[in-house]
Amino acid sequence: GEVAAGRAKANACAVCHGPMGLATLPDAPNLAGQSALYLAAQLKAYRAGTRRHEVMSLMAKTLSDADIDDLASWYSSLKVRVDPVP
Amino acid sequence: GEVAAGRAKANACAVCHGPMGLATLPDAPNLAGQSALYLAAQLKAYRAGTRRHEVMSLMAKTLSDADIDDLASWYSSLKVRVDPVP
Repeated sequence: GEVAAGRAKANACAVCHGPMGLATLPDAPNLAGQSALYLAAQLKAYRAGTRRHEVMSLMAKTLSDADIDDLASWYSSLKVRVDPVP
Repeated sequence: GEVAAGRAKANACAVCHGPMGLATLPDAPNLAGQSALYLAAQLKAYRAGTRRHEVMSLMAKTLSDADIDDLASWYSSLKVRVDPVP
């Protein structure tokens, strides 16, 4: 998908998933750095109803395949690092 | 939960989710830095069957509540950062 288009479409997601894909709410996952394959699969599962969530099931119904690919490209384009642990 | 205990129990998860919670496989999510609430909710959903995945549904059946709390504590203890984007 298109990263820039995905970033624009992600404005609707930012309220829970944060402007840079780090969740602002404890019951929402971080999306930054997740693989595009995984993200697209989850959005399609919510859209199809094989994965259910009171908010995501509704949000996903509004998404086209292109929207899903763009959103997946945007979030997977974000590079995440984990602080080293002794 | 107990971070150290969770880290030990996470050995079983590392093959797909990586030793530090950054997924090694594109169809597996990163777990590092996800909230303990979210992680525990997903493991319980897999265990209860309200979320299904061919591997995770089996893995989760083996987990006690304490296992879930420890795993959630371990992965949520990992600090993730997103590289800034212009």
